Amino acid sequence: MLKRKQSVHSDDVTRATFQALERRGVALEAISEIVYEMQSPYNEGLTMEHCIRSVERVLCKREVQHAVLVGIELDELAEKGMLSAPLQQIIASDEGLFGVDETVALGAAFTYGSIAVTTYGHLDKEKIGVIKDLDTVPGGQVHTFLDDLVGSIAACASSRIAHRWRDLEEKGQTFAAIDPDDFGPKVRVHA
Amino acid sequence: MLKRKQSVHSDDVTRATFQALERRGVALEAISEIVYEMQSPYNEGLTMEHCIRSVERVLCKREVQHAVLVGIELDELAEKGMLSAPLQQIIASDEGLFGVDETVALGAAFTYGSIAVTTYGHLDKEKIGVIKDLDTVPGGQVHTFLDDLVGSIAACASSRIAHRWRDLEEKGQTFAAIDPDDFGPKVRVHA
Amino acid sequence: MLKRKQSVHSDDVTRATFQALERRGVALEAISEIVYEMQSPYNEGLTMEHCIRSVERVLCKREVQHAVLVGIELDELAEKGMLSAPLQQIIASDEGLFGVDETVALGAAFTYGSIAVTTYGHLDKEKIGVIKDLDTVPGGQVHTFLDDLVGSIAACASSRIAHRWRDLEEKGQTFAAIDPDDFGPKVRVHA
Amino acid sequence: MLKRKQSVHSDDVTRATFQALERRGVALEAISEIVYEMQSPYNEGLTMEHCIRSVERVLCKREVQHAVLVGIELDELAEKGMLSAPLQQIIASDEGLFGVDETVALGAAFTYGSIAVTTYGHLDKEKIGVIKDLDTVPGGQVHTFLDDLVGSIAACASSRIAHRWRDLEEKGQTFAAIDPDDFGPKVRVHA
Repeated sequence: MLKRKQSVHSDDVTRATFQALERRGVALEAISEIVYEMQSPYNEGLTMEHCIRSVERVLCKREVQHAVLVGIELDELAEKGMLSAPLQQIIASDEGLFGVDETVALGAAFTYGSIAVTTYGHLDKEKIGVIKDLDTVPGGQVHTFLDDLVGSIAACASSRIAHRWRDLEEKGQTFAAIDPDDFGPKVRVHA
Repeated sequence: MLKRKQSVHSDDVTRATFQALERRGVALEAISEIVYEMQSPYNEGLTMEHCIRSVERVLCKREVQHAVLVGIELDELAEKGMLSAPLQQIIASDEGLFGVDETVALGAAFTYGSIAVTTYGHLDKEKIGVIKDLDTVPGGQVHTFLDDLVGSIAACASSRIAHRWRDLEEKGQTFAAIDPDDFGPKVRVHA
Repeated sequence: MLKRKQSVHSDDVTRATFQALERRGVALEAISEIVYEMQSPYNEGLTMEHCIRSVERVLCKREVQHAVLVGIELDELAEKGMLSAPLQQIIASDEGLFGVDETVALGAAFTYGSIAVTTYGHLDKEKIGVIKDLDTVPGGQVHTFLDDLVGSIAACASSRIAHRWRDLEEKGQTFAAIDPDDFGPKVRVHA
Repeated sequence: MLKRKQSVHSDDVTRATFQALERRGVALEAISEIVYEMQSPYNEGLTMEHCIRSVERVLCKREVQHAVLVGIELDELAEKGMLSAPLQQIIASDEGLFGVDETVALGAAFTYGSIAVTTYGHLDKEKIGVIKDLDTVPGGQVHTFLDDLVGSIAACASSRIAHRWRDLEEKGQTFAAIDPDDFGPKVRVHA
């Protein structure tokens, strides 16, 4: 008989990931808009629906889910003042040389190749859309990790699109030929 | 009408990748043996066939293919003495602090997550199987990049297996339930 | 007049880093023994004192300090059951596919080059010395991040030694010529 | 007696690095201008001289030097049509999904921490100054690696400045208090 360690089921991790983003006020559509803004000039036939499905797909990847859960947990603990000094102050003040927020976001981006990494770096400087909103919240809210995570998710979804585009090119097709359901199956997350 | 840049077709890149490894004397079976040695203790039902298909799958990934082509090109150019000084001497002597061989191999490993990265690091020190053979070749042959690339490919294929194992666990299954053809479709490369 | 954001002073971060390791039962000597075991065969004249100073030096680097503080915080919160589900269970059970522990440790290792990265990967698999002790603690204690952090610190200190060795070689010297105080100034941390 | 492997002397590697950049038409001043443009708004008292010295310092780091030598070698070989197919075509056409150019540049950036990584990603998209010039050369010239290398060097030099700024802040100083000679000793490279 096979002995197995009792682990959290991957469905629970997926659900927790989607819920955490929702709880922090980040709609999948808002992330997808960043993706659409960056990729639509280069990808004929690309629609918001493709971008949403790409974001959902990215959010089903284990490495991305764990990064999201850890980052949001630390943001929320800092918001409640529950971290120990001096980490509490470093995260609460979004200290510029902290770096662990970028490291965790990069860990997710790496799995989508070097395009994802450079795109994340770009979004980290040019805060587009919801990333800008997260960066300029009123006092009390902490988004030290969240803005980096959103940038990383958008970068991963963008990289998926750029790679798929290349495959389409070789067949003489555009995204117009791609049913969003085939690009990224709709994720069903039951509460 | 859509203007497209003339690009190398991905089938040509795939074929070149498999041919480069063959030309350098690295059989897919030899890489797969490293994978099997590392993963079989933890993955009930895992066979060499699963490992070979996992290696083939990894070798179809763009980031891995480009790393293989660049690394083998530099090894071969160094073997023919065609690089400029001092790079020629650095690569030909497998200078320990060179680092670009590890960087290129890591670039491929990153796309399979942190397990692939640490497994690659392990194989870089504990030279198993064909990696050891490559490391102890008679004078004249240069494998500065090749041993790192093989370690990286084996690490990626191992990470794929570890992640799949987790999915199997959740269904109460083992690799015995997995047809190798479903785990990694057989790659057909016509010369 | 120059407006400055109120930041945590770097002396406080340094002190907190050393204290966190001590609180978790990891003596600098224990990390240094790993370094000595790995580097002494290749570095003539290397002493434990050089290794301790190299570890201290590594622990003064911002990227390393922040990684240590975040990782230990998460271990301690998990130990107290203060993380939210399912992250609490993932970290408390040291889930093999978690990956964020490796990502954070890698973020620190990267700053010491590719040798540090591969050495960390090696230590992640071959748990030497105190890393093995941390990995086999009695129930209740959580060292999910700590063993990776110790491996990363040891890898960074080893890389520093390997790079310095190369400089010594060019002068025809060994570590016997190096006063430990010059290799890594003794860190004074006042409580 | 100590047996030592015959290695290339680090002075030769340093000299080759500076010469390679000069041969490819990239003046240190041009890289430094990117650094100045990015860092001067945040670093009171920062001068072009500080930026040049920071760039020189970065170019003395082994990981950076090796990345520069490999990347420029591949650019030059592609320019002469000396690479084998299909790598020749991939590099000569600056294929967007190639990725190894970014990987090699990232390998250097990693050693200056996550700020260097995100700054490099930013420069990869927003081609500033000489990076833009390199990207729009007339046919025949190949700068597939060079523009990424320049971005990486500028990112590393910027990260050095950002970290030093933090140290200055804690002393209540600005860059006005820093003699460029102390920030990065002038590199003397004799032909």
